[in-house]
Amino acid sequence: MSLQQSILNGDRLALSRLLTEIENGSDQGHQALNDLFKHTGSAHLIGVTGAPGTGKSSLVNRLVQHYRNPSAQQKSKRIAVVAVDPSSPFSGGAVLGDRIRMNDLVGDNGVFIRSMASRGSLGGLAATTAGLVQAFDAAGYDIIFIETVGAGQAEVDIAKLAHTTLVVEAPGLGDDVQAIKAGILEIADILVLNKADRPGVESAERALKGMLQLGHPIEKVFHHHGRSEQINTEEESEQDADEWITPLHRLISTDGTGLNELVKSISKHREYLEASGDLARRDRARLESEVDDLLQLEMMLRWRDSTPPDIYQATIDKLTNRQLSPRQAAAILLNGDDSQ
Amino acid sequence: MSLQQSILNGDRLALSRLLTEIENGSDQGHQALNDLFKHTGSAHLIGVTGAPGTGKSSLVNRLVQHYRNPSAQQKSKRIAVVAVDPSSPFSGGAVLGDRIRMNDLVGDNGVFIRSMASRGSLGGLAATTAGLVQAFDAAGYDIIFIETVGAGQAEVDIAKLAHTTLVVEAPGLGDDVQAIKAGILEIADILVLNKADRPGVESAERALKGMLQLGHPIEKVFHHHGRSEQINTEEESEQDADEWITPLHRLISTDGTGLNELVKSISKHREYLEASGDLARRDRARLESEVDDLLQLEMMLRWRDSTPPDIYQATIDKLTNRQLSPRQAAAILLNGDDSQ
Repeated sequence: MSLQQSILNGDRLALSRLLTEIENGSDQGHQALNDLFKHTGSAHLIGVTGAPGTGKSSLVNRLVQHYRNPSAQQKSKRIAVVAVDPSSPFSGGAVLGDRIRMNDLVGDNGVFIRSMASRGSLGGLAATTAGLVQAFDAAGYDIIFIETVGAGQAEVDIAKLAHTTLVVEAPGLGDDVQAIKAGILEIADILVLNKADRPGVESAERALKGMLQLGHPIEKVFHHHGRSEQINTEEESEQDADEWITPLHRLISTDGTGLNELVKSISKHREYLEASGDLARRDRARLESEVDDLLQLEMMLRWRDSTPPDIYQATIDKLTNRQLSPRQAAAILLNGDDSQ
Repeated sequence: MSLQQSILNGDRLALSRLLTEIENGSDQGHQALNDLFKHTGSAHLIGVTGAPGTGKSSLVNRLVQHYRNPSAQQKSKRIAVVAVDPSSPFSGGAVLGDRIRMNDLVGDNGVFIRSMASRGSLGGLAATTAGLVQAFDAAGYDIIFIETVGAGQAEVDIAKLAHTTLVVEAPGLGDDVQAIKAGILEIADILVLNKADRPGVESAERALKGMLQLGHPIEKVFHHHGRSEQINTEEESEQDADEWITPLHRLISTDGTGLNELVKSISKHREYLEASGDLARRDRARLESEVDDLLQLEMMLRWRDSTPPDIYQATIDKLTNRQLSPRQAAAILLNGDDSQ
């Protein structure tokens, strides 16, 4: 039986092997993804991001447990977690904590957790994450969490992979956390104020509401839907199909307070995406961006293969001697002259 | 007089105009950088990075004041600060705080502060930052601080621009700050434990020493020097020319305690870079990486110009219908077939 067929049949070991191939960027991994891609598109991709110390992992842990053991009228879902740590470009050690925290999920065959540290490699973290997510999607996982530690550009890139993005905040994280929020808030479909039993929760909530009301312009590239300036913290309020109003949920992930409301928001957002046509639009934008990344990588590899090393070295020598600027050096390496 | 000549003559307004052109990626900016590049290479580039809440801005503020008003036997230096906020891809607002905090430096003609938010643009934040730094370097600034908010991949990319990288930590910042440290520590030439008057400073120092002792493998691409596993917190200890031992300094940037020791470490690191040949090696690696980025951007732009929009749209349609995988779509768009 082929690797692909084993994965479609639910073989965890085969899936695990494929994930490693994808991380390594091997030809076998690429080939398998080509073959499996037609089986993707069913999973709900949920991004979870936010600043350090906001308790993202325990939040994800709670959500996983909820979807595995739902109330009587709902079906248990198969869940995958891709935990990405862009702040650790050198070693896999930093995400170890996530694995440990998820210990109570070990042994559940309906849950698959994969931690990944940035390799700082050509091709990039977002591309590798996209591959892992596609593998889980093809393997029939219903919900795939994409969890990132931190709140920089890398996290924003990874958030583009998700259908529903949860941005997690917590009270009292220090001076320039406010600064981080400003950028990261704009990718939030749902805002979670975690650790809501901590001091400062009221002022944090006020600050977040204020920021939501500022109504930052939406990046049309990957957020095609409109956004109201109205704030909604009520779970039962109206969400019409044309417009998604980012809700703000208080949560205490250690004891589960607020979890049910959050889960309802997640499923409402999924319904909104389907009803509004945003699901298809986001899917297209996401795939376009993945193709762009692949094109860029492939062109760079081809250029490297076709450029004689001595010409490259001679040009870089002139650059370090300040005879050429970086832009002039690039023009020479592309054109054979500096006419740029 | 040309823009370039005005800048070489120390005209602040001309410099300010050039910085804007560089941020906008205009042809005039590129042309000016080409002409000015031969005047670069003298400044000491100091990167300052670390997690939110560690007090990077007030630390930079202190250092700037020190270099502007040194003790009797030293010359006052001209200082530039490039404050980059990769967590704010959409708006310039988030770095406003830095400008405000630097208010006491306003009016000093020997200091130039430029805040920049990520534009999320083609070409990228690191490339634009490199351009700004080159402009300041050509304009004769002796020390250029490159300050980044956050601790993700974008910060690591930006740290590669610096000769000397200060990683700033502080006691008690929350649960997964530890995780961030693991990745970011490896780019530290000097480690600063700021807010050393806060509770938890001993345990933070112990944790940081432990991590330094782990001796993470060094990324040879941009850190060519060896690194000992020995820890050094004494300002007067030996640093031989072949080997740089990352020192750990306690600092209280609000009152300046520990500042003199930090300043000594910075100048020792500069001496080390020159004596060991690392300065030239880092310069080369940095410029190579900038050329790589420019090549990638230019190839992508050329490919876009040469690809008929209808072929692109038809291929993306097949992709969203799952008839093609992203990799197959990229191959078609590059080769006209999917033989990849």
